[in-house]
Amino acid sequence: MDKKFMLNLLMKGDINIPALLIEHYHAIGLDEQECMILIQVHSFIIKGDDFPTFDDLAQRMTLDETACADMLRRLIQHGFLSIVQKTENQIYSEAYSLLPLWDKLLNYAYGKESEASEKESEK
Amino acid sequence: MDKKFMLNLLMKGDINIPALLIEHYHAIGLDEQECMILIQVHSFIIKGDDFPTFDDLAQRMTLDETACADMLRRLIQHGFLSIVQKTENQIYSEAYSLLPLWDKLLNYAYGKESEASEKESEK
Amino acid sequence: MDKKFMLNLLMKGDINIPALLIEHYHAIGLDEQECMILIQVHSFIIKGDDFPTFDDLAQRMTLDETACADMLRRLIQHGFLSIVQKTENQIYSEAYSLLPLWDKLLNYAYGKESEASEKESEK
Amino acid sequence: MDKKFMLNLLMKGDINIPALLIEHYHAIGLDEQECMILIQVHSFIIKGDDFPTFDDLAQRMTLDETACADMLRRLIQHGFLSIVQKTENQIYSEAYSLLPLWDKLLNYAYGKESEASEKESEK
Repeated sequence: MDKKFMLNLLMKGDINIPALLIEHYHAIGLDEQECMILIQVHSFIIKGDDFPTFDDLAQRMTLDETACADMLRRLIQHGFLSIVQKTENQIYSEAYSLLPLWDKLLNYAYGKESEASEKESEK
Repeated sequence: MDKKFMLNLLMKGDINIPALLIEHYHAIGLDEQECMILIQVHSFIIKGDDFPTFDDLAQRMTLDETACADMLRRLIQHGFLSIVQKTENQIYSEAYSLLPLWDKLLNYAYGKESEASEKESEK
Repeated sequence: MDKKFMLNLLMKGDINIPALLIEHYHAIGLDEQECMILIQVHSFIIKGDDFPTFDDLAQRMTLDETACADMLRRLIQHGFLSIVQKTENQIYSEAYSLLPLWDKLLNYAYGKESEASEKESEK
Repeated sequence: MDKKFMLNLLMKGDINIPALLIEHYHAIGLDEQECMILIQVHSFIIKGDDFPTFDDLAQRMTLDETACADMLRRLIQHGFLSIVQKTENQIYSEAYSLLPLWDKLLNYAYGKESEASEKESEK
């Protein structure tokens, strides 16, 4: 059993989260719960499940299903998340996309660096 | 400038977070703010700064310095975090250790798997 | 264009490789080419493609398709890799599994630690 | 012992390697041994040791110390690696920098994407 457990542990491994998100979620307008629900969505997407249910998310969070649904809707409205349509083998389905989030983070980081460069060159 | 920005982006990269933490923080008794402050501490440690200030943490979170200090104290009291003493080149210093957190997560995951195995063998 | 490039860069991100593999591939009997072909297989698996073609692998390596095929066969024979059968939606397919590799690495690391503990207790 | 071993396993975790390196090392002129020695240097750097010895590297590879030293020299000559001088607390030291490698990879990936865009717009 121990061996099997350790193998699972090794294969489960780490979840990669862009450093930009950890460092700047607050600066782009997210609080900890919102950031964490986006991290959860991200962790499902990278494991190959791009449309986790509200229940999947609620299982891991302090929020219940309704609160998860509300939060995701709000994040979509505020441009942190989108739902995209996919057609694969003629089967139509939906998927979450975090492209809007990465876009916001890039814009923020880029803006911050430009500002720093300008200050630098004013000296 | 763009090139420098992209190089920074590439070198900054991702932060590795054990999947166990993302999946089970709620099960071991943490809420999203507590989990996120521990992720922040983890992200400083893996970058080589094992004793970030309250201000370092507050900069990235919705919490102010006092709230960060309170939360860390509570996490230490409840056995999710510890402060260890180091002596390097005869200089004494303190560092956060997340060993208690990883220990709790391992115990939880191990307990869950043992349970599942028992159910399996009862069949 | 730059923006799109940076978004791709951010989303492509890092590939997670268990530290055990990087540190101990030589100790378990692999050379650099063999280790790298296994890293390639791993990188396809975690992106959701669990049966990359010889051509997919050869594209990224100094080896041609035939050499990739030979190397994979040899790795299977020596117990570093296996091919497993899957049935999904009544469609039968094959997939590479790196379970034998992780198993060998765990055994090696575990054996090394046991040895160290024994030496410790003999003192 | 098992518990301690598992904790080490969990804390050791994964090593993050930019996907660009895994996918394009051959395209920028590296073979598997050269790529692997750079991955080793990278893995030491991110653990906080930015100047591993030839012996540190040789321990993990099929190469001996002399071969490691030769390979690193060649990689520096060909612009994949550099040695930088640091002064910290008035102590002077040297460190490896992989900036030249990331720079080459970015240039390659950027060039490839520009090419693809041009072909696209010619249609």
